[in-house]
Amino acid sequence: MANEIPDIVIGRLPLYLRALTYMAQEQGKITTSSQELGQRLGISSAQIRKDLSHFGEFGKQGTGYHVKYLIEQLRQILHLEEEWPVVLVGAGYLGHALGHYQGFKHRGFQIKWIFDNDPDKIGQEMDGLIIQGMGKLSETIRKEKVQVAVIAVPATTAQAIADQLVEAGINAILSYAPINLQAPKSVKVHYSDPVILLQRMTFYLDT
Amino acid sequence: MANEIPDIVIGRLPLYLRALTYMAQEQGKITTSSQELGQRLGISSAQIRKDLSHFGEFGKQGTGYHVKYLIEQLRQILHLEEEWPVVLVGAGYLGHALGHYQGFKHRGFQIKWIFDNDPDKIGQEMDGLIIQGMGKLSETIRKEKVQVAVIAVPATTAQAIADQLVEAGINAILSYAPINLQAPKSVKVHYSDPVILLQRMTFYLDT
Repeated sequence: MANEIPDIVIGRLPLYLRALTYMAQEQGKITTSSQELGQRLGISSAQIRKDLSHFGEFGKQGTGYHVKYLIEQLRQILHLEEEWPVVLVGAGYLGHALGHYQGFKHRGFQIKWIFDNDPDKIGQEMDGLIIQGMGKLSETIRKEKVQVAVIAVPATTAQAIADQLVEAGINAILSYAPINLQAPKSVKVHYSDPVILLQRMTFYLDT
Repeated sequence: MANEIPDIVIGRLPLYLRALTYMAQEQGKITTSSQELGQRLGISSAQIRKDLSHFGEFGKQGTGYHVKYLIEQLRQILHLEEEWPVVLVGAGYLGHALGHYQGFKHRGFQIKWIFDNDPDKIGQEMDGLIIQGMGKLSETIRKEKVQVAVIAVPATTAQAIADQLVEAGINAILSYAPINLQAPKSVKVHYSDPVILLQRMTFYLDT
């Protein structure tokens, strides 16, 4: 199935999931429509219906979508029913920020290991985890069959870390380093880049 | 013009700009095609041509796009010809990571002020900036006519900060707090949310 559906469609599903979760938890909504969801997200209702139709029939003419049911279905489609253990590389300011981040909870991910190459940091505690030396990284990934990693190191070392992660068996990398990483096609790589989001907004600003 | 073009199209332009900049700076490419750009980004060449056609004719049949020219045009479209001064609120781990981030340079943004409410932090230096107390925030935004702000505070205080930013004149907010912010329609708000990127990848992983 994965090969037939454009990645750009897959990329929108987490946005639907986040909006639906907000509707359920903060607004107490039981049902919603592709129009309402679309308005919230700035995506056309036709696009939302088309995206979801790749995976089945989730709505009913007239009553729309049952919010909780659609949340469950999206979690299943995105493989979020069980929590993914995550390896974090880099215990600098960003690593600490990620360790403290409250947004992972109940959304499918938990940082379970953190690695750094700084002897002063190794052995210290960070949010209930002990910072480990890079020598343990590959072994941990192999032994624990970890598939997901977050890179929070400077641009200069990010590629070497990525190589090590891939070699040890990581299949999905989220990188905060502002460089393009080389990785095999079978490995998914995405980048957290604040500038992409800022540039999207300045279009609308008066200079 | 802004009202006629879907925001989702605007959202892709920074991705084109980043990929083109990489082609020019790292690969020394002079020209490219919508096919090549599309392959790099996982977006169809037809979509890229359609997106760009909203703004004019940038390519030539047969020779494709002149990379540097298209970069200049995109920077102009996105209002990136001059650097936007940015206010950063929050000098915790995340604020420090943003202060150190090397990815802003030459991409249209510079963090010029940083604010925090922690008396221990106020007055300290961070990447050449002095951390200021929140009492100076509104005054600075008004006096310096700042339009862009980054929120790097916990979820519990993010909405109060957003309200203050909007009231002082901020028109674009990038928030790292894992909550939905309420803001007037005229103010653009985007969220940096690592989970959205992680969830996009787990679709492809074997559970």
